[in-house]
Amino acid sequence: MGRSPQQERPKARLPKGFRDVEAEEIRGVKEMLRVLERVYETYGFEALETPFFEFSDALGKFLPDQDRPNEGVFSIKDEDDQWLSLRYDLTAPLARYVAENYEGLAKPFRSYRSGWVFRNEKPGPGRFRQFMQFDADTVGTASPAADAEVCMMAADALEALGIERGNYVVKFNSRKILDGVQDQLKIPLEVRTTWLRALDKLERLGPQAVRELLGKGRKDESGDFTKGAGLTDEQITQSLNFAESRTLKGMLTGFEGTAEVEEMRRLFDAAGYGEDRIRFDPSVVRGLDYYTGAVFEAELTFETVDDAGQPVRFGSVGGGGRYDDLVARFRGEAVPATGFSMGVSRLYAALRHLGRTASLGSLAPVVVLVMDRGQVPHYQQLTSRLRAAGIRAEMYLGTAGMKAQMKYADRRGAPLVVIQGPDERERKVVQLKDLAAGAAMARQIDSREEWRSARAAQVEVPEAELVPAVKAALEQRR
Amino acid sequence: MGRSPQQERPKARLPKGFRDVEAEEIRGVKEMLRVLERVYETYGFEALETPFFEFSDALGKFLPDQDRPNEGVFSIKDEDDQWLSLRYDLTAPLARYVAENYEGLAKPFRSYRSGWVFRNEKPGPGRFRQFMQFDADTVGTASPAADAEVCMMAADALEALGIERGNYVVKFNSRKILDGVQDQLKIPLEVRTTWLRALDKLERLGPQAVRELLGKGRKDESGDFTKGAGLTDEQITQSLNFAESRTLKGMLTGFEGTAEVEEMRRLFDAAGYGEDRIRFDPSVVRGLDYYTGAVFEAELTFETVDDAGQPVRFGSVGGGGRYDDLVARFRGEAVPATGFSMGVSRLYAALRHLGRTASLGSLAPVVVLVMDRGQVPHYQQLTSRLRAAGIRAEMYLGTAGMKAQMKYADRRGAPLVVIQGPDERERKVVQLKDLAAGAAMARQIDSREEWRSARAAQVEVPEAELVPAVKAALEQRR
Repeated sequence: MGRSPQQERPKARLPKGFRDVEAEEIRGVKEMLRVLERVYETYGFEALETPFFEFSDALGKFLPDQDRPNEGVFSIKDEDDQWLSLRYDLTAPLARYVAENYEGLAKPFRSYRSGWVFRNEKPGPGRFRQFMQFDADTVGTASPAADAEVCMMAADALEALGIERGNYVVKFNSRKILDGVQDQLKIPLEVRTTWLRALDKLERLGPQAVRELLGKGRKDESGDFTKGAGLTDEQITQSLNFAESRTLKGMLTGFEGTAEVEEMRRLFDAAGYGEDRIRFDPSVVRGLDYYTGAVFEAELTFETVDDAGQPVRFGSVGGGGRYDDLVARFRGEAVPATGFSMGVSRLYAALRHLGRTASLGSLAPVVVLVMDRGQVPHYQQLTSRLRAAGIRAEMYLGTAGMKAQMKYADRRGAPLVVIQGPDERERKVVQLKDLAAGAAMARQIDSREEWRSARAAQVEVPEAELVPAVKAALEQRR
Repeated sequence: MGRSPQQERPKARLPKGFRDVEAEEIRGVKEMLRVLERVYETYGFEALETPFFEFSDALGKFLPDQDRPNEGVFSIKDEDDQWLSLRYDLTAPLARYVAENYEGLAKPFRSYRSGWVFRNEKPGPGRFRQFMQFDADTVGTASPAADAEVCMMAADALEALGIERGNYVVKFNSRKILDGVQDQLKIPLEVRTTWLRALDKLERLGPQAVRELLGKGRKDESGDFTKGAGLTDEQITQSLNFAESRTLKGMLTGFEGTAEVEEMRRLFDAAGYGEDRIRFDPSVVRGLDYYTGAVFEAELTFETVDDAGQPVRFGSVGGGGRYDDLVARFRGEAVPATGFSMGVSRLYAALRHLGRTASLGSLAPVVVLVMDRGQVPHYQQLTSRLRAAGIRAEMYLGTAGMKAQMKYADRRGAPLVVIQGPDERERKVVQLKDLAAGAAMARQIDSREEWRSARAAQVEVPEAELVPAVKAALEQRR
């Protein structure tokens, strides 16, 4: 191909809702995932990866707010004229996997998965069209012990990440209890999904917004209007009373689901997970349509500031629930299942906020300057010797002069540069220059002394002793 | 949602060209990537991740064989009527990233990336539409030292993975040399791409197939016909003579690119990388359209068997080259760049073949049986105690009886099961049963002894000593 003429030049930019991730965050997230994996493995869960594409009919339609074209999902037609979709979560693909491999799996089947998922939704601040989830699921058991287990695992995982007890809580509820309340309050069938989604927003938007969403409707800050459920004042007040209560007492008695919630509480008590870590909360709803029983939410309870500078609780970093019909869709027989999904980006943001991502990062590389272009093979040899000793090292690869090379090393955060001009080469020595110490010294001495005083941060060593000398200098800096 | 009626039930299956990945492979690939990352970090490369979607015009069209609709790439239109595509490699997105962030980057800019890429191509055996690559690139330098560096890094990476010297070779060539040969042989401009792609297949298909592809054309095993370059017999013979030679001598003298190749050889020599590890090979072409200079190929040279049971060399596991125009497309000024891409799945298959993926895997979990449904909270407590001590443990979550539970534990590969019936509970003890030892003993004693002899593989310990007893039993099994 030839270079495009000026006027056809494409613009280098990303589509809205997508972003690049750079080294520090990659390292932090990787380390975080390693901790989660360790906890989940301890619980007996096995890793699993499904591909990014599934047949659209296999994924089903369970997303909230599918009111845009393409319905929240990225879909294309394949060469056989069948619709494929990019996964919008990690649960629907798991259901397909289990249904497809049912006979060969030891059941109940515990698995965990991490990976990117895609939503074809309106992007906004902190709202991306590609984001990462970390899921754990148990398929093939209706036992509340399976629901309790994933909640305990989530609590353990948050603590393993360094989030202290008291700074998080795993809240649980049951869709069956919510169904019972809807029956009792005579919520019309056609607005029950709207009712659930309104209550789901209680934590994030507050009671006034939920009141509007349960009534005539609500206009958000961007001016978009969401149609309400059109309930009576009495129904709205009772709904909010229910959602804001914190116990199983009163109106809940006798609902289907109450027994399950009580059984979960007994399991938490037996395993030593108190109300400070895991507790019942009737406002937990979860937005996805496929939940059928227990639902969970992991929330960070410490304060941070919102976009307007107001203190707010950090909020949800994950959740999940029981989805007994998702595998049954394929198999036509009941296959109960439950799972917990962590929002990786939210969780990473929380760890950063708490200062828990303190760079485990590798040290920046030593930079070998190129003082004499004719000697590149020799500089290459010096660099290779450092690398062979396990020292992170680069030879400067550009064409710039010494000043620009020093600036490059500085921008790379290099702890040391290795310098060898014709004179040093003659004498078979190299100069090791400590950039950080040099800069600090230069700042300290200000203008009272000559720049050359900062040469104290520079040592000359025989070329043959390059590796031990660099090692020693790096040790000193730790 | 309600359960779908029988006739609407979706079939649980994956689209062609996609596959699920299970625990053992996930662990193996993860460990392999960790080794690659360590080597690349030592070379001073920094991690980077770009998103899966890019604007289609930003990716450009550089794939070989784009003769199907959708042209090899998965594309969709976004809500603003602009075409987005899933990345088909990790190089084109890097070019977009560098062009977009040019001013802020310390140059030359070294980065590495691993991730899934997508090709909307005809799937076949071992040919997937989603696969993983691991790339390293240096942007902002035309120096052959940058090309040499990624080749040395690839060689080091293969050895770090346990592929012994002699079992691999990194081969290099230059597109500029290929251009010179085309000029000399008077290959018509309109068939030069066909010429390159034909030579690219020399290693895989052999000289007779390449002869056909350079001549009238070739019908492959599936019956598909590929149109040939229509060259004369003389041109074909000379082309093959060139591609099958192994030196820079003879017809190559004086071509542009020869000096670069010679400079690379000097750098390899200086850094101690002999011809056994990295060598010039004029048959290296690489299929992608964006290469402009040096091209590389990493090949595993040990033998394996093909689908027909014939011994063949394992072949290519990666490659790359210099692509000086890819960033220039965006910026309109020259930004030279070079990179190396590893095929993660091919490489993992090679390591498996060499027995280099010996499961570092975590031990399978201890399974706590549920002998008394009323005591689930107590079994949960036993399980939690094991986990808190860092022991991988599960409580059985199904509803089946003891025999099925033992079978489950066996399928999970559990080293131990913990058993506590009403009698043991009364006496505050548990039974620890070593499944593997029990099975081995049962095999040994055959039918001569009673099954109960195998009880020797079972010990009774006080419940209070559960954790140390399990630890001791697991230690013994190592």
